[in-house]
Amino acid sequence: MSRPAARLGLLANHLSKQTTQRFSTNEASANAMSNQKPHPLTMIPGPIEFDDKVLEAMSHYAEAHTAAPFVQTFGNTLKLTRQLFLSKDANAQPFIIAGSGSLGWDIVASNFVESGENVLVLNTGYFSSAFADCLQVYGAKVDQVTAPIGDRPTLEQVEAALKQKFYKVITITHVDTSTGVLSDIKAISQLVHKVSPDTLVVVDGVCSVASEEIKFDEWGLDYVLTASQKAIGAPPGLSVSYASARAIKTVENRKTPVSSYFASLPRWIPVMKAYESGKPAYFATPAVQNVYALHEALSQFATSDESVQKRIADHKATSDKVKDAVANLGLKTVAVSRENSAHGMTAVYLPQGVVNTDLLPALLKKGVTLAGGIHKEIATKYFRIGHMGVSATRPQLGHVDTVLKHLSETLNELGYKA
Amino acid sequence: MSRPAARLGLLANHLSKQTTQRFSTNEASANAMSNQKPHPLTMIPGPIEFDDKVLEAMSHYAEAHTAAPFVQTFGNTLKLTRQLFLSKDANAQPFIIAGSGSLGWDIVASNFVESGENVLVLNTGYFSSAFADCLQVYGAKVDQVTAPIGDRPTLEQVEAALKQKFYKVITITHVDTSTGVLSDIKAISQLVHKVSPDTLVVVDGVCSVASEEIKFDEWGLDYVLTASQKAIGAPPGLSVSYASARAIKTVENRKTPVSSYFASLPRWIPVMKAYESGKPAYFATPAVQNVYALHEALSQFATSDESVQKRIADHKATSDKVKDAVANLGLKTVAVSRENSAHGMTAVYLPQGVVNTDLLPALLKKGVTLAGGIHKEIATKYFRIGHMGVSATRPQLGHVDTVLKHLSETLNELGYKA
Repeated sequence: MSRPAARLGLLANHLSKQTTQRFSTNEASANAMSNQKPHPLTMIPGPIEFDDKVLEAMSHYAEAHTAAPFVQTFGNTLKLTRQLFLSKDANAQPFIIAGSGSLGWDIVASNFVESGENVLVLNTGYFSSAFADCLQVYGAKVDQVTAPIGDRPTLEQVEAALKQKFYKVITITHVDTSTGVLSDIKAISQLVHKVSPDTLVVVDGVCSVASEEIKFDEWGLDYVLTASQKAIGAPPGLSVSYASARAIKTVENRKTPVSSYFASLPRWIPVMKAYESGKPAYFATPAVQNVYALHEALSQFATSDESVQKRIADHKATSDKVKDAVANLGLKTVAVSRENSAHGMTAVYLPQGVVNTDLLPALLKKGVTLAGGIHKEIATKYFRIGHMGVSATRPQLGHVDTVLKHLSETLNELGYKA
Repeated sequence: MSRPAARLGLLANHLSKQTTQRFSTNEASANAMSNQKPHPLTMIPGPIEFDDKVLEAMSHYAEAHTAAPFVQTFGNTLKLTRQLFLSKDANAQPFIIAGSGSLGWDIVASNFVESGENVLVLNTGYFSSAFADCLQVYGAKVDQVTAPIGDRPTLEQVEAALKQKFYKVITITHVDTSTGVLSDIKAISQLVHKVSPDTLVVVDGVCSVASEEIKFDEWGLDYVLTASQKAIGAPPGLSVSYASARAIKTVENRKTPVSSYFASLPRWIPVMKAYESGKPAYFATPAVQNVYALHEALSQFATSDESVQKRIADHKATSDKVKDAVANLGLKTVAVSRENSAHGMTAVYLPQGVVNTDLLPALLKKGVTLAGGIHKEIATKYFRIGHMGVSATRPQLGHVDTVLKHLSETLNELGYKA
């Protein structure tokens, strides 16, 4: 119990710091274009601000998980998930399961890896390390290529590691939410297919899916896991993932049984297939209302290759705006270059003399919630801004402008001159 | 993969059968007292009809999982969970985790049992068998005492089994949703404490919590698992459970590490303790909106011993009404006696000549969703009525009256004369 307990102290310290003071509704202007009650703008790297219709779908009236309208909605949501990953491979398989994003790690560790098999983890921060922890719980032998904070492993390092021994799986954290570092999953996947073609390419896309480009089939990915509450723009509560035909075969050909129950893909595959073909099936009760909300969120942007790509472009434009503003303030991002920076969030080093315990409560008083640091080696030295979903795709809502204005003013009030 | 796949066919057949025909809103009268859109009455053994305020809480605006208002709400929800179980033991521990009810089985199997240890499963139906499956996935050696369909194991049978060998855990399905059979967890727990005092008493309360009496401390229970979507009356998506101090110690004193990651209690304990003491913590992102809904649901009935007991009494009264009406129609319940019948649902054998594929679609046309059978040996021979939550506690909504009226009329139309 010591590791999680120790980690907790750190996290309790460094997650978005907030006073207990409630937000004053007089100061809520940025939500004027929505039907929602005035509230502080939630601009952290997930959960994020919602579209009104997505939120309304969360309060869908009671419906049996086997009722025809829900069966149709769940089936359509699975189809939209295929589109989200720009995948045309009918033998690939989407999964939507009640749970947090991390449940995807258990799926990887207990389905694609058998006890004693080797996994290579590319480490770009806190969440890469946690993924490695999860893999080890289920018996994987984990090696890691760890980049300096703010950077990512080089292709040369990855190639050298792949040549050392056979890895059943390589895991890449597409965006590590602790650092805002973006991995080049396309280049890494190409490398894996060249150097170690039998290695499954697994991507933790919790903080990247719907804000970063992902071409599942074209890039030869085998499994991408994400969650409902980040760039997809739905409330938290759903694990969303996508497996290649090769990944499914790997599970089917295991020598030992899958080492989890709730996260067991062989138990979920027939359920997902049934719903997508318009029939109900049961393994565990789906989160009906959350699925309705996910369906609404995906319907708004994942109906064609073009609409998905438009969303990625919107996130890139918003990210550039935030990063330009941060640079103009004379602040440094944790990610060492634009090229390896995420487009849905920005991790920013605090200037000398300013601390999160002053900055974040001051911003909250102005109606903006940002997040503190979470990477244990630098946790108190930086803060994080989320700019995903409607905050990225609808500049007319003014979310990012509000954040940047208040950030600049507050830093000034705290004695920092850009 | 063969077992789940085979089971699927059965389930797809026998879950609530419905045509694709949409419900005609003209026929929706039973929801006249609510703010919700007219919709078919969902009277299955969960998910159930919602209170308006619970549903409204599901569309709570975006909030960080670490924001002060959410921290307070989550902390209060954990306190209400203590009250739900009538527990005063400060060393007992509530857990609220994003997931389905079945996640509680993984928690039991991977935290309280080590590979190779013996578990005794008291089997009263489909869900007891599934719990046994889950235990075996994580390495438990499972013995079962299986009752005839509709009945429950006798205390003598349980005592004899407990004397055969040492069981680390005994599992009791309080209400098996497949049969509507109620287990006498008080008597069994007393027996276990007398005959095998070191055995942990684990209760699957998915379909019993908030509709059946449970005195956690007084009855010496060690772990009760449930879900948000049944008698508690919130939407599906949350695993809700409660562990005794003894159960927590068992996890802490394991010789081998906990054999799951997302379901690992040592990873969740510090998080739950932090939130209950008013501080944020992180292991995996909580389902913020679902927690707000659960908070609203629990606030409505779990604020005192008396308010919890009132809810149990309301469920008993409603259950008696349904079971009297079913008996008056000349129909037989699956549970062999009133004494071993659940109070939140009723499983009813179809009369000769009436089949679910006629009965359930006909009822749906009248605006009522009931469920088909799920116990594999009798699946086509019975149907199930849920009567939990507002449908049980607010007779003025007319939910049960509507069901009973339409059931009687429809059976008549299908040629059955009571």
